[in-house]
Amino acid sequence: MPGEFDLIRRHFARPAPNAVLGVGDDAALLSVTPGRLLAVTSDMLVAGRHFFAGTDPESIGHKTLAVNLSDLAAMGARPRWATLAVALPEADEAWLAAFARGFFALAERFGVELVGGDTTRGPLNLCVTLFGEVDPARVLRRDGARAGDDVWVSGQLGGAALALAHLRGELDLGAAAGACLHRLHCPEPRLALGRALAGLASAAIDISDGLLADLGHILEASGAGAVLDTGAIPHDPACAAFPDRIAACAWAGGDDYELCFTTPPACADAIMRAGRAAGVAVTRVGSIVAEPGIRDARGGVLPHTRGYDHFA
Amino acid sequence: MPGEFDLIRRHFARPAPNAVLGVGDDAALLSVTPGRLLAVTSDMLVAGRHFFAGTDPESIGHKTLAVNLSDLAAMGARPRWATLAVALPEADEAWLAAFARGFFALAERFGVELVGGDTTRGPLNLCVTLFGEVDPARVLRRDGARAGDDVWVSGQLGGAALALAHLRGELDLGAAAGACLHRLHCPEPRLALGRALAGLASAAIDISDGLLADLGHILEASGAGAVLDTGAIPHDPACAAFPDRIAACAWAGGDDYELCFTTPPACADAIMRAGRAAGVAVTRVGSIVAEPGIRDARGGVLPHTRGYDHFA
Repeated sequence: MPGEFDLIRRHFARPAPNAVLGVGDDAALLSVTPGRLLAVTSDMLVAGRHFFAGTDPESIGHKTLAVNLSDLAAMGARPRWATLAVALPEADEAWLAAFARGFFALAERFGVELVGGDTTRGPLNLCVTLFGEVDPARVLRRDGARAGDDVWVSGQLGGAALALAHLRGELDLGAAAGACLHRLHCPEPRLALGRALAGLASAAIDISDGLLADLGHILEASGAGAVLDTGAIPHDPACAAFPDRIAACAWAGGDDYELCFTTPPACADAIMRAGRAAGVAVTRVGSIVAEPGIRDARGGVLPHTRGYDHFA
Repeated sequence: MPGEFDLIRRHFARPAPNAVLGVGDDAALLSVTPGRLLAVTSDMLVAGRHFFAGTDPESIGHKTLAVNLSDLAAMGARPRWATLAVALPEADEAWLAAFARGFFALAERFGVELVGGDTTRGPLNLCVTLFGEVDPARVLRRDGARAGDDVWVSGQLGGAALALAHLRGELDLGAAAGACLHRLHCPEPRLALGRALAGLASAAIDISDGLLADLGHILEASGAGAVLDTGAIPHDPACAAFPDRIAACAWAGGDDYELCFTTPPACADAIMRAGRAAGVAVTRVGSIVAEPGIRDARGGVLPHTRGYDHFA
């Protein structure tokens, strides 16, 4: 059986020309561009919790990095470097090779260099820490939403939650299964949109826990509330066949990794242009108001949790 | 049972005055000191692998951060920020409170601010990514050892390996158990020494896998070999009662987190002064030679692995 050092070398030691020092010393050395802030995010994915045990390792490699890239998109940051810590139950070469394929395919698309990490034996666990750079004057935070701002979302919501329900046998997506499963397993981080929003949006977050929960984080940080035009919330075409699931999947379902953001109304044209330039639909779904909570246009309270709670 | 967000807030959301933005957004924002490189290291600790299941959580909190701090010590870097990702089998408040106590006590001693991370449910797994700053002209790497340099180690070696043997019931340390177990569970990262060596040592590494293995990494990176005066290798006083274990524990045993470093012979006085100033003994144990491998003074080859291999 190949050893740890061989595994690291074979699958994870790649050139990192934009790092001063990459994999292979006690620490990596990075030179942050003068005038830029370093944006840092870290996500841990656990087998049986974030993905089913039998999931294709190539898509796990993609998703492990994608969920972190999505966080940088929501800050308006440019991704640059990552570390990856992996606990594996056994040294499964084929699994690792496929995982690395998915991970590095996405890393290369977005210019991310793997500069360090750790490999150990244990129940399957993947922890990426991702580093980006952002102009301090244009960074997107959660706490800038103001009453009167528009609320927007990118793309279409609900596909990932439908796929999860399909995998659990709660429904049968039929011909739509492929597209929804792709959304669940291979989310597309909205980096081009996030960078276009930098300097334009007043607040932003990525939708990992569901629109209502993640918008709720913006509202909590900004000390505000929102009124949503629920009919305008863009849902995955597959939702049409399951109208009773639209609220649960498109409004409250997680794992879509679209962006939710707020802007002054005067920015609407610029936002539409940003969406077109980034190749993703952007839809105005409501407004920020002073009164806390999320309501629909008729004043009904839209219940939202504080996000997916692993210990609830 | 308390939820994830309450747990995070209660135990891990602390002020981070030296970060632009800490816990609570999609990413943390850090401003790296102009002219400094960012040093990044990441280690993942798994229950049953890096510590026994019943280990005191306060010492697990200490060790989780200490092993990363030790990596920064070996680079001559000044620690500044950390992220922490935790998978927990259940929301055990008492465990988390004790873990946080150990983690933050060490963090505060060395000026580390926790700026982000993740909490999820799963088999116990702790992943810290640690960020330091270092002067690019004074950074300590593995690849600078040159023939003729002296080889040094800090402190005393073998205590942690003896403690592990004691816990496994292979031997009984008697009255020495307490001190050795403290070495195993609460290693002291040699940060003051590392910073004093910056600009002085030609290469450095922290001894996590054992002196022979870790010196081997310096030699591999530097394209050199070494001759060791094995009698000079400083061993833990507890080794005296187990002379047949000195080679296994003090030369090849891991987890002591002392530093191994190389310097031109002319630096010897400066190194002794650096050790005194840092409050840790430093001992010259050999020389770098051109011929690869590690030999004792009589020319006998000292076998060394490439480090602790989790998949061997």
